Amino acid sequence: MSKPRDPQTLARMCADAMLAEDKAASGLGIEVIDVGPGRSRTAMTVTESMVNGHNICHGGFIFLLADTAFAYACNTYGQREVAQHCAVTFVAPGKLGMRLTADCTERQRSGRSGIYDVSVSDETGNVIAEFRGHSRTLPDKLIPEA
Amino acid sequence: MSKPRDPQTLARMCADAMLAEDKAASGLGIEVIDVGPGRSRTAMTVTESMVNGHNICHGGFIFLLADTAFAYACNTYGQREVAQHCAVTFVAPGKLGMRLTADCTERQRSGRSGIYDVSVSDETGNVIAEFRGHSRTLPDKLIPEA
Amino acid sequence: MSKPRDPQTLARMCADAMLAEDKAASGLGIEVIDVGPGRSRTAMTVTESMVNGHNICHGGFIFLLADTAFAYACNTYGQREVAQHCAVTFVAPGKLGMRLTADCTERQRSGRSGIYDVSVSDETGNVIAEFRGHSRTLPDKLIPEA
Amino acid sequence: MSKPRDPQTLARMCADAMLAEDKAASGLGIEVIDVGPGRSRTAMTVTESMVNGHNICHGGFIFLLADTAFAYACNTYGQREVAQHCAVTFVAPGKLGMRLTADCTERQRSGRSGIYDVSVSDETGNVIAEFRGHSRTLPDKLIPEA
Repeated sequence: MSKPRDPQTLARMCADAMLAEDKAASGLGIEVIDVGPGRSRTAMTVTESMVNGHNICHGGFIFLLADTAFAYACNTYGQREVAQHCAVTFVAPGKLGMRLTADCTERQRSGRSGIYDVSVSDETGNVIAEFRGHSRTLPDKLIPEA
Repeated sequence: MSKPRDPQTLARMCADAMLAEDKAASGLGIEVIDVGPGRSRTAMTVTESMVNGHNICHGGFIFLLADTAFAYACNTYGQREVAQHCAVTFVAPGKLGMRLTADCTERQRSGRSGIYDVSVSDETGNVIAEFRGHSRTLPDKLIPEA
Repeated sequence: MSKPRDPQTLARMCADAMLAEDKAASGLGIEVIDVGPGRSRTAMTVTESMVNGHNICHGGFIFLLADTAFAYACNTYGQREVAQHCAVTFVAPGKLGMRLTADCTERQRSGRSGIYDVSVSDETGNVIAEFRGHSRTLPDKLIPEA
Repeated sequence: MSKPRDPQTLARMCADAMLAEDKAASGLGIEVIDVGPGRSRTAMTVTESMVNGHNICHGGFIFLLADTAFAYACNTYGQREVAQHCAVTFVAPGKLGMRLTADCTERQRSGRSGIYDVSVSDETGNVIAEFRGHSRTLPDKLIPEA
């Protein structure tokens, strides 16, 4: 398996390599809907085990959804990347049964550092949370080159 | 049930009120070990469902542990408080089987806003992550006054 | 002077009202090049008084340029807005004599809260810093309505 | 000039080396009142050139005061350190004539990365702003070893 020249194919291969070892995302029902170079989309439905007594989703699960989108977006260049620093702003409550979508785009990439923005929205497109993640490139490859 | 004058008793009553409705923390095995006015300690063991193929804990679960400590620390005054904005820095990897402890202290409280700092450490006291949370006081009471 | 219906005219009137009382921006040589609803562009040249012995611009002045763009972008709806929380990532050093431009766009606006992103670039378009600002709407008007 | 064994002496030597090349801090009237290993205190009086028409200090100058405290606190080990990412929360307005003090302490240091917290207060001890800075160690030395 060699590193492909086409960025979209490489992004897809990286996502597949990550999905194969990712029990956490699947355990929470997080789906990776789309990936491309420096971007991704994930989705999750708010379940009973994610809410408090008022049926409001714990912010930590919204973070997890956004953080997963961030991880799949920055790990699309064949090199392994990790999160260094993340910030999240909670704009509106997530509620039981809501289908949440996290869209991640690349803000900036320079040397071994990257900045990625994620918007989490409900089915009607209302923003639930805004997330910014800072990545750092590790020496190890996610996709071995030929 | 009236609001007690003693801050430590009030903090404990708030934690009990929150625990009664908190399926999310218990579902992840997060324990609330200690609470007091403006502070709390939570703990969690990194399980198989929290790690990737390299047995490294997903950052989102470390966030969840810290965010839970933050929630139990800011909700100790009888009034309901929510997270507005949180930032986390990942300092060292969490690993399968590690027992992680999150210690939350109050940095600042003014009007309806508060700032709380959480350090997440492993069994040997090594810091795994540093978290800062911003809270906002809601109009509803967590503990009804007499 | 009544509040105009046209968003671009209102944005321009807000900027003029702010510029009239803004000694700080002018004292640093910060120019407000462009404004529109929820956006602005500011520029500044790195001078001797902004650098250290290695001719590297202090990060605080880069923050000031970005923060000014943020202030002019969020204050474009006739209501007075203030900064609550800001974060800046320094991507590359600013150097003596560089002409820096800060472009601010609105990420999100909901109720009394807004999120704005600013990129600071040099003349060649290289990013120097990324900034995210959180605004809060005050009760007072910047432009009195008729 | 060799690197001293005593941490307090080394911290003082680092501060003196930085002050010698720091036109920016002195130009704003920022004083470095105290330094020690991983900590510092700076102070500044809010002048006419820092305020808007309502005599409220621009947040950028409060950032500059806090950022200077951060720089003097992290640069106390003989190695040159730079700011990577900083976040500031504005708690109360700074006003014309106020004497502001910024106290910086080290939260965490691990490998080439450090986290520092700064509280900015007025004369009566009221907190004006809370700041958290992330530093990165550069290969160059601030104080050459013998």
